[in-house]
Order: sequence, then C-alpha cells, then structure tokens
Amino acid sequence: MSIYDLFIENDQQAMALALQQAEQGMFTTTPNPRVGCVIVRDGRIIGAGFTQPPGGNHAEIQAMDDARQRGNDVRGATVYVTLEPCSHFGRTPPCADALIKAGVGKVVSAMTDPNPLVAGKGLEKLQAAGIAVVSGVLREQAREMNIGFFKRMLYGTPWVRMKSAASLDGKTALHNGKSQWITGQAARDDGHFWRARACAILTGIGTVKDDNPQLSVRAVDTPRQPRRIVVDSNLRLSPDANILAGGGTWVFTASEDRARIAALEERGAEVIVLPNAAGKVDLPRTIAELGKRNLNEIHIEAGSKLNASLIREGCVDELLLYLAPSLLGDGRSMFDLPALDDLSGKIALRFHEIKQIGEDLRILARFS
Amino acid sequence: MSIYDLFIENDQQAMALALQQAEQGMFTTTPNPRVGCVIVRDGRIIGAGFTQPPGGNHAEIQAMDDARQRGNDVRGATVYVTLEPCSHFGRTPPCADALIKAGVGKVVSAMTDPNPLVAGKGLEKLQAAGIAVVSGVLREQAREMNIGFFKRMLYGTPWVRMKSAASLDGKTALHNGKSQWITGQAARDDGHFWRARACAILTGIGTVKDDNPQLSVRAVDTPRQPRRIVVDSNLRLSPDANILAGGGTWVFTASEDRARIAALEERGAEVIVLPNAAGKVDLPRTIAELGKRNLNEIHIEAGSKLNASLIREGCVDELLLYLAPSLLGDGRSMFDLPALDDLSGKIALRFHEIKQIGEDLRILARFS
Repeated sequence: MSIYDLFIENDQQAMALALQQAEQGMFTTTPNPRVGCVIVRDGRIIGAGFTQPPGGNHAEIQAMDDARQRGNDVRGATVYVTLEPCSHFGRTPPCADALIKAGVGKVVSAMTDPNPLVAGKGLEKLQAAGIAVVSGVLREQAREMNIGFFKRMLYGTPWVRMKSAASLDGKTALHNGKSQWITGQAARDDGHFWRARACAILTGIGTVKDDNPQLSVRAVDTPRQPRRIVVDSNLRLSPDANILAGGGTWVFTASEDRARIAALEERGAEVIVLPNAAGKVDLPRTIAELGKRNLNEIHIEAGSKLNASLIREGCVDELLLYLAPSLLGDGRSMFDLPALDDLSGKIALRFHEIKQIGEDLRILARFS
Repeated sequence: MSIYDLFIENDQQAMALALQQAEQGMFTTTPNPRVGCVIVRDGRIIGAGFTQPPGGNHAEIQAMDDARQRGNDVRGATVYVTLEPCSHFGRTPPCADALIKAGVGKVVSAMTDPNPLVAGKGLEKLQAAGIAVVSGVLREQAREMNIGFFKRMLYGTPWVRMKSAASLDGKTALHNGKSQWITGQAARDDGHFWRARACAILTGIGTVKDDNPQLSVRAVDTPRQPRRIVVDSNLRLSPDANILAGGGTWVFTASEDRARIAALEERGAEVIVLPNAAGKVDLPRTIAELGKRNLNEIHIEAGSKLNASLIREGCVDELLLYLAPSLLGDGRSMFDLPALDDLSGKIALRFHEIKQIGEDLRILARFS
C-alpha cells in the first residue's frame, strides 16, 4: 500500500510519515539535516518528499513538486515537515518563501531550527503571511534523526558514536586477537547501517596495522561512502593501506615528517598535523576540527587503546555496543581504561535504546 | 478496581488473571508449583485463588472456596487454571475429583502436567465426567512461572539461575575487590525478588570469607526465607559465619574433617560430603542432590571462580545479569573462565528477556 492510499487521521500519523520520508535521506543529505515532508488535504497525502543531496531541493520543495506532478493543488493544504522550514538563502532559496508563494494553508513542524540565531524565524515568517503554524509534533524522534547536525549547530562539534562488539562477559577479542566473529551476521550488517549514516568513520593506526580494513559500507546500499579518518600520531600508515584506496582519507597526526606526509598525499589523503603536549594527536582538537569541516556524525571503530583515550578525553557522545550471547573467558577488554581505586571514579552513561538484532543485543548508551 | 469487577471477554484474559493469582504464590508454594485459578460465569469472575504453602489447598480448591464465600454457585461455571488439575492423591485429594463433584461446566488449563507419567490424566478424568476441557491457553507464560518445578519433574534436577552484576565493560568489581555498588537500588531490590522465588541461594566459601553475607531476602516481603547453601571443598567455613545464622544451611564439601563437621552441625547446618576425583566438591552431583531434595529453583550468587566452575561443568541453566551503564576499566571479570585459542570454543547462550530496571539493564540469558 502506498502512502497516497492512507487516510490521515491526525498530526502524529502525518508527522510519522514525514519522518519516514526523512529516513530516505539518511545516507545522503550530509552536511545538511535529513528532513521529510508530507502535504495533506482532506485526509489524503497529496505530495511527499525528502532532502536531496547537497545543492538539491529541500524536503518541502520536493513534496510540492511531487504534488504538482500528481496533478494536486497544494493551495490551502497542510504541510507536515520534520524541521522548521528555512528562512534564509543557502545553496537554495528559503523554503518558507516557497511555501508562502504556493499558498499552503497550514504548516506543522516537528521542531524549530536548533540554531538559536534562526530558531523560530521560519515559522514567524509563515505566520506573518497568514499561514497557521504548529510546532513540536514528534519532536523527540525528529531530534534523534539529526542528532549530529543539531549538535554541530549548537556546539560546533559532531556527534561521536563509538561502535564496539563484545561477548556477554565483556570481551571484544580472544587473547590472540581473534574476533571474527563474536556477533552474528545480522548485527554485523546492522553495523554497516550505522557506518552509512555517519559522515566519517574514524579508526586508529593500530587497527589499520592489525586488520588493514577498508572501512567502507558494504552490507547496506548507499550512493555515498563516508569519509575515512585515521588517527596516527607517528605517521606509521603505509601508503598501500586499504583505508587510502579511492582517496579522500584524512590522517590526523602529531608528526611533521615531510616525506611521509608527501607519500600519503600522493595517495589522495589529506594529512592534518594536530599534536598535543605529549606528542600525540590532540583528540579534542581533532573532533573540533571535524566539526569545523561540517561533519555531523562520526562513527568510531577503533581498538581498545584509542577507544579508551577518546572516552577519557571526553570526545565520545554515545556507545553503539553489540553484545553477543556468549562467554569468551579471559581475553581482551573493550576499552583499555586504567584500574580504579574507588567506584566513584567510574565513567557514567545512561541507556538510550536496547534492541535485539538477530541473536545479539544492540545497546545505545550515552555519556552523561 | 477488583478482579471481580472486570468483564471477561476471552480465554486469554481469564488465563492472564489466573497467572496473576499464581504469582501470589511465587515465594511460598515450593516444592509445589505456583498455580492460579479463576472461575468465570457470565463474563464475571465468581472465585479466585492460588496454591497455598505445602499441605494447604491447591489453587482450584481455593478458588471454589472463594466462590462459595462470596455466595456464588460454581455449577456450570468455567474454571481457568494455570496447570492441569491433579488427578492423584498427594498431601491433598485430587483437584480433578473436587471439580467434578462441584459440577463445573468447563475447565481451561494453560498446560498439561509436565510429568509424562501423569500428563493429560487430570483432563481425561474431567472429560470422562462430561466436563468440557481446553488446554494450551498462555502455555508459555505458565511454563515460565514454574520452570524449576517442571525441570525437576522432567529431569530430576532444579533450574539453576546464576546472578551477576557488572559494568557495561563487563567488570564485576574493581581490582581491589570493591563492588558496592555497581548497580542501582532498583536493580539490587530486583535481585531480592529473584532470591525470594528461589528454593535456595547457593554461594561459595570465597564469597563467605570475603563478604560474610547473610544471603537472606530483605528488599521484598516474603514469609519464607530460601535455604542457604555453601560450596566449601576444604571446610574453611567458620561456625560464626552469618550464613549459618538461624540454622538450616547446607554445606557441600569434599572434606571429612569430623571436628569441623561437628562444629557446623552444632550451628544447625547439615554437611554433605560429595567429593570429586580432584578432591573438590562434585558440582554436578551437588545439583543432582538438590533435585533429590525437591528444590525447584537454585539462585547462585558466588564469585568468579565458583561461577566459572559451575558454568564449565554444565550446572547452570540461566544467567541473571544486571548491567550498569558505566565503565570501570581494568578490574575483575564476571567469570574466571580460561582463555580460548579459537572462537569455536565460546560458551553459547541465547537472550531470553531484556528489561531496564531503574538505570540498569537486566538480562536473562539461557545456556543453549
């Protein structure tokens, strides 16, 4: 059944469908937010759309185009959009102006723009033009969908999600390093969904040396591959590493070895020198730099040492942890964090979402 | 609102209410199963009851007494009971006979008796007396409620549940042994519910020496305290240990030290000598002995060494694991299991139930 055949009974139902539209831009809208829009008249959807890749149409324009192509008149209709329509000129003209010009009757948004400088301005513009305005329908779901974009708008830094997989007794590999596979196929495929939605996948030189991963998205279909980022304090990265294939990889380092930098640049990589006082890569400054470069969500798949450093230096927002229903006994821990003398020193999180994926458990936990 | 005010629309609803009755016997019916019963006529519950402590009435008799006390006539009514009515003389006369004598019209049971020697006999007896019979309504829930009783009936051994609590990185204590508290108050209280429903709480001499626990139920209200059991191969247990307070504690040992045995018996303990070839307590024989002694559910709260031995020797059916949303770093693992060379050696479980308890996660996982 198509969404155009549904009978729309209330605002929540319409906004849920707009959120489904937004999901279709999950892998492609970055650095813009994923936004969805449905236009409703007389209980029927007459147009639907979602944000196109950068430079393309925003969701509202897509939905109005869709309505026109279906021979539907949007005048007087109600527009449901998962984020407040923009009121400024970016790469595209303001959506608020287009909605006013089209003569829609009402605009329902899930939330106002997170940027305090423009929050509410789009809705005010619509209201000034005589269009009825409602905001806050399914706000929380809309917020989650663009958690990285919103964090960057508010704080200048991306949302950093760290992925790990472990047995029920907390082991991420055997003593000999073997870890293929602790979790099942469904969990591993699910991991690729989270890679695909990220702007970049970040790892450390240890993982590159051990596994020589591509860190590409394979298990889900996406027209956009996330950027690859390597943290490599001493520039040990080989120009032959798989992670450089295709170019565009960013290498954060503390080394100024010109010859090595040139060899990596030869492979299409960009080398960013950001040392801290200890002669290692400055991780908080690295994350800040990624924000400046308009990255919304960072997906980390690294070893226990880099993971631990990122956590200790406050660079991580969320753990994405797959727990397998198995016991591995003595083996490698997820995070190479130091021993504590007192429980008051524990690093606190809160569970955000728990879901069973195949035989495994997926835990989203956020640092508090 | 009382259950007597509800309108009963279908068998599932009535059986769910019978299961709620059964839950009221959760802490008290052992070694008998927890059974609940509601009697329905014209869409109303006219009587309800649950199994009384051993020697007391079964659920069906309680429900019929309740109906009579309320001035209700059970003739022709429908009886919902969470386990097939018994057809044999135990400490009480057969419930099937009582139902026939009372002239009920129909009996709906959640499941037949698990004991293959008597399975179906109670329902056949009812049917032979002209009473309509249905079985299998909410079978799975009814089975879970008495999982220990059913395992004992079928295999002669109790259901063994091992409780542990750990941080998200799988640590059950700091290096210095500190573990109070990794989980929150709600999870710790929930742990007492699981203690209370067990026939016995089993621990090892290491835990007794380290923590001197009472292993009593305090956070939930129960008229029956589970029996305490200590595994103590060399009889290091002090006669002053809290776990002996009040008497009735069973001590499984490999030692035949007469003086120590006598000192523990003096404190009301029973000492059972069950050595294996290695001079330690024979754990599988210990579990078998607990089955012979009519224990349905065993709750284990022990240290990582005894936990690991019980798991490796195939003595555990289920893990009850509380995971806290925190990272502890280097510390003590849940189970002192040996390192593996290959992932094919992993110990497999399957997730049975996941629930958030306060800030923590409760995981029930079963060995497969």
